Amino acid sequence: MLPFDILEYQDRIKQTKQKMAERSIDVLLITDPANMYYLSGYDAWSFYVHQMLVLIIDESQPLWIGRYMDANGARATTWIYDENVIAYPDEYVHSSTHHPMQFMAEILEQIGQGNRRIGVEMDHYYFTAKAYQTLVSCLPNATFVSGDLLVNQVRMIKSDQEIEYMRGAAKIAENAMLHGVNSIFRGVRECDVAAQISYHSIAGTDQYGGDYPSIVPMLPSGERTGMPHLTWSERAFMEGDSIIIELAGCYKRYHVPLARTVNIGPASEKLDRIAPIVIEGIEKVLDAVKPGITCSEIEEIWRNSIKKYGFEKEARLGYSVGLNYPPDWGEHTASIRRDDHTVLLPNMTFHFIPALWFDHYGIEISETIRVTDTGCETFTDFPRELIIRDGYATPSQDGKIS
Amino acid sequence: MLPFDILEYQDRIKQTKQKMAERSIDVLLITDPANMYYLSGYDAWSFYVHQMLVLIIDESQPLWIGRYMDANGARATTWIYDENVIAYPDEYVHSSTHHPMQFMAEILEQIGQGNRRIGVEMDHYYFTAKAYQTLVSCLPNATFVSGDLLVNQVRMIKSDQEIEYMRGAAKIAENAMLHGVNSIFRGVRECDVAAQISYHSIAGTDQYGGDYPSIVPMLPSGERTGMPHLTWSERAFMEGDSIIIELAGCYKRYHVPLARTVNIGPASEKLDRIAPIVIEGIEKVLDAVKPGITCSEIEEIWRNSIKKYGFEKEARLGYSVGLNYPPDWGEHTASIRRDDHTVLLPNMTFHFIPALWFDHYGIEISETIRVTDTGCETFTDFPRELIIRDGYATPSQDGKIS
Repeated sequence: MLPFDILEYQDRIKQTKQKMAERSIDVLLITDPANMYYLSGYDAWSFYVHQMLVLIIDESQPLWIGRYMDANGARATTWIYDENVIAYPDEYVHSSTHHPMQFMAEILEQIGQGNRRIGVEMDHYYFTAKAYQTLVSCLPNATFVSGDLLVNQVRMIKSDQEIEYMRGAAKIAENAMLHGVNSIFRGVRECDVAAQISYHSIAGTDQYGGDYPSIVPMLPSGERTGMPHLTWSERAFMEGDSIIIELAGCYKRYHVPLARTVNIGPASEKLDRIAPIVIEGIEKVLDAVKPGITCSEIEEIWRNSIKKYGFEKEARLGYSVGLNYPPDWGEHTASIRRDDHTVLLPNMTFHFIPALWFDHYGIEISETIRVTDTGCETFTDFPRELIIRDGYATPSQDGKIS
Repeated sequence: MLPFDILEYQDRIKQTKQKMAERSIDVLLITDPANMYYLSGYDAWSFYVHQMLVLIIDESQPLWIGRYMDANGARATTWIYDENVIAYPDEYVHSSTHHPMQFMAEILEQIGQGNRRIGVEMDHYYFTAKAYQTLVSCLPNATFVSGDLLVNQVRMIKSDQEIEYMRGAAKIAENAMLHGVNSIFRGVRECDVAAQISYHSIAGTDQYGGDYPSIVPMLPSGERTGMPHLTWSERAFMEGDSIIIELAGCYKRYHVPLARTVNIGPASEKLDRIAPIVIEGIEKVLDAVKPGITCSEIEEIWRNSIKKYGFEKEARLGYSVGLNYPPDWGEHTASIRRDDHTVLLPNMTFHFIPALWFDHYGIEISETIRVTDTGCETFTDFPRELIIRDGYATPSQDGKIS
């Protein structure tokens, strides 16, 4: 039932411990659900309560500590021994008198780790200010140090099995994009198209049943195409609308994002002008990416490519991508931007999304890429153009399913 | 475009300031996206980067501080003045050298709030340990105090407009449950049914276009029904399987969750025995809920109802529900359990989910309720029974859409 061979987990643990040793960390408390899954296999929507994996430098097995009702799921989805699954009672959940970190600190004390150097994921969503404060006050003899992005850095270079899962995610992404685009007609609501995309993302294909992407489909239309993170509304599409679709296929928690821009009827002059400029910039970058190039150098290629047409871009161009849980599919390590000097290596994977947003319109055309031994390849195969939709829906094409 | 009248926002601000005054908080930093939406209207999937609403006790308008690319969305979706929308540059995003809280602290200093009593949402997902640590170190003259659940407590009693939105969410939930149940056949994969449910949750109805629920549909089957938070797999259903469906309809970010248990073919003796016991317990509770009763008293009614059959339940029975964002639709205030003495008042809303989980099976039958002036009412109208599915799928009923 495990998505990876036990030897692959052992190798991940080994690499993580090497990084712990470099940072003089004795005990790493892992609260990022992607890192928990990466090291143990634990996969559940239980990250809305406090939980963690405890990796001790001189112990071979991690501990899982979480909510009592989730312990059976931890036993079922991980490779770790059942006795290493430790559960706190429900009175600790969303309580004003009990905090789960009190329980966890007590366990750490009991197993002799209360006076060690403890690494914590300081800037992760699921390690709150109160979680940290509670741990620090309950473990006065421990020294707390940052374990931020430690496991994430191990995750940057994918194994062959991880790449296989991303290929599955790519098939799902292509299929979801195709059905999303084909459901766009005048008079169809944004929510109907978002529903089509979600259906195909989750059902997946016959070969690859879909997992839930860490972000819902983004689908701004009209003036909202200049506002990238607004989610869909009940607005019905109109003649002339442009629509940005950003989605991801997800397979066994591995993501391949994909963005395209669609126009109902002929596009505006502005959009018509900008689309080939963006596509040219993407092509130049894809030609240049290979092992040894840095994120900063990629950004420079893009910047020069659009500068000659008088454009510049405020935001980063992309980021390391793969395994994740809500609320983000990015891995929070390398970003493709000027001040990031990460050197690209084979089997690193990036979502390259050089979107341009203006006050009243925007464009997104993206590719998820794998760095190969000699260059790069895109995961998906989807026409890289501004997509024009025309015609009204017939009754059987109204974007609805029964 | 605002989902609520401006007077309703003013009233929410006023109630929040009253609670700030009670806790001697001068400045409340609101990082929970549900609380940001509640007070300002801001609605975007941008909570994967640091952002906040700043409510100052002696200023009438809050400030929104977030990422540059999200500022247009903040101007478009909120009632606050454009000049109160302040954006940080992209170099602060997922960076090892810049933290958004450095920028935010600088703004607070510049507007003369650097030496005040500042309330922060200490245990919220989107207020990390590092966010807190950075703020504290950048604002040495401020006093930090807990603003935990302050706005959440205001949110507990719903307005008539909020209840209307929940009624819309209830229609969506009923429809999604119906289609989910009707797509269950032997040989259909869990992911196909999850896709059906997601489609109908997001498309919604003609009247109520769906919003994304804060949790994906839960759909454990077979032995996994004892593991409530495992998400769907590619497993195909088999004769005899039981399947637990927990979903929510969501309309304008307001949730109505609903859970039912389904069996393919005749249910096991165990499940057949437990179902009427759970339903009887639910009915006793629904008969008893009215203004003035406490969460603890409700738990006692349930406990006594199942105790006579020899059962007891470890986890809480339910929680305050309504407005939320991923990863949870619960409001983290009142829980229906023994040590929670919250007094129920009209227009409080709860998800009452007295699920029972055993090592190899489980049952969930739930209702979302509104406390009325004299009792309570359920939002959805869906048969409260163990649902038996029979027969194989015909080619047109294979759980797939084209």
